[in-house]
Amino acid sequence: MTAYKGYLIDLDGTVYRGKEIIPEAVEFVSSLKEQNLPYLFVTNNSSETPESVAQKLQNMGIPCETKHVFTSSMATASYLTEQREKQSAYVIGEDGIQKALEQAGITYEEDQPGFVVMGIDRSITYEKLAKAALAVRNGARFIATNKDVSLPSERGLLPGNGSFVSVISLSTGVEPTVIGKPESIIVEQALERINLSKEEVLMVGDNYDTDILAGINGGIDTLMVHTGVTTAEQLKEKQEQPTHVVSSLKEWKI
Amino acid sequence: MTAYKGYLIDLDGTVYRGKEIIPEAVEFVSSLKEQNLPYLFVTNNSSETPESVAQKLQNMGIPCETKHVFTSSMATASYLTEQREKQSAYVIGEDGIQKALEQAGITYEEDQPGFVVMGIDRSITYEKLAKAALAVRNGARFIATNKDVSLPSERGLLPGNGSFVSVISLSTGVEPTVIGKPESIIVEQALERINLSKEEVLMVGDNYDTDILAGINGGIDTLMVHTGVTTAEQLKEKQEQPTHVVSSLKEWKI
Repeated sequence: MTAYKGYLIDLDGTVYRGKEIIPEAVEFVSSLKEQNLPYLFVTNNSSETPESVAQKLQNMGIPCETKHVFTSSMATASYLTEQREKQSAYVIGEDGIQKALEQAGITYEEDQPGFVVMGIDRSITYEKLAKAALAVRNGARFIATNKDVSLPSERGLLPGNGSFVSVISLSTGVEPTVIGKPESIIVEQALERINLSKEEVLMVGDNYDTDILAGINGGIDTLMVHTGVTTAEQLKEKQEQPTHVVSSLKEWKI
Repeated sequence: MTAYKGYLIDLDGTVYRGKEIIPEAVEFVSSLKEQNLPYLFVTNNSSETPESVAQKLQNMGIPCETKHVFTSSMATASYLTEQREKQSAYVIGEDGIQKALEQAGITYEEDQPGFVVMGIDRSITYEKLAKAALAVRNGARFIATNKDVSLPSERGLLPGNGSFVSVISLSTGVEPTVIGKPESIIVEQALERINLSKEEVLMVGDNYDTDILAGINGGIDTLMVHTGVTTAEQLKEKQEQPTHVVSSLKEWKI
């Protein structure tokens, strides 16, 4: 087994389930910390800031500082600054994406923005979507933090950002550039952040269609853990298999 | 040329363009009235009541009473009353659909409705879509008044009902029953309303993908008029051609 020099780790289903911690994940992350192995929690969540994600993980007993968190909003902000388009965006989304773009120096603009950026926005209105559609038709580049079609909640599965992104892509005929898992952009941005090469890093996650595919698409090794979405049965059906598979993170020797 | 006993007529692009009347349409509808030929304006618009549509047409000089208007909301209400499901609906939409369902005796219900009905709602919120998604996941039958992905406005093309319907279909994995053109349900309901058989009626419209396909799907003859969306060039590409084609309704001999 390769000794990886760094870990990219999913959150929901891998480290916790909703509000409940997965105990093996605490031991796993604590071992990484003890051995001074760098790790980054890589999440499609665009609504929270890295500070609030780190706080939540600390409260659950996971060793985590703000520098250990990499959200799809941070990846989006970082990606935009590398593009040649006008550095302004019309933004639909919550705190996480608004602050990430602001901190990256992307100006907020409604009429002639270089980008239209969409993250989950639970205060969505028709007018926000109308403005986004007009800007995209007007030539703004369309960016989605992630394309998850549903969002787990205590009430059940609610519509996720991917469902709202389809409002704009269907009505304009323009498909977005997607930053989050399973796309490779968030993986590439995370590698820059953790400052390691593809061969040195392992992507850990419970969801084949987001976490594992992101690793595969990004060209890095993957560790599938069956504590969340994808079952062993479902995994059998997948053509491209993860590099490693465990039932729980307890089985993984760092 | 068959002498048709009744006409189903599209509005936008056929009778008017935005706020501008198409003069040949006034003559055409006036001739129908003089010859006592029944006609019904069949529109995917779900937001307005038949009274307000009739008023708008009267103001433009078109002979039109409320009984001459058939909206996708009226077709939806009529369709629901013919189904075996519990006669209650969680409704997303504006005046037209809300009133049509109320008048048809469909009860408004949020928690365990028989149907989730979606028409365009320019006061859409996340909570409305969340409730719709939960009800559909809970077994409510999913109905869309129409699936037009964009909505013409003075500002340009804005997101239409079909784009919002995709929020629910993507997030739940459940496709809706669609009532409006190009589906055949609205045509079948219109035939019942005008009380004529398929062979006796002509569908008139400017949009191949909605009006003409609705006629084809509903098994009635079609008259394509090039005063709106579909150009003669675009029509050439279509595999199934309309029964009749004219540049303007002036050319049509009743």
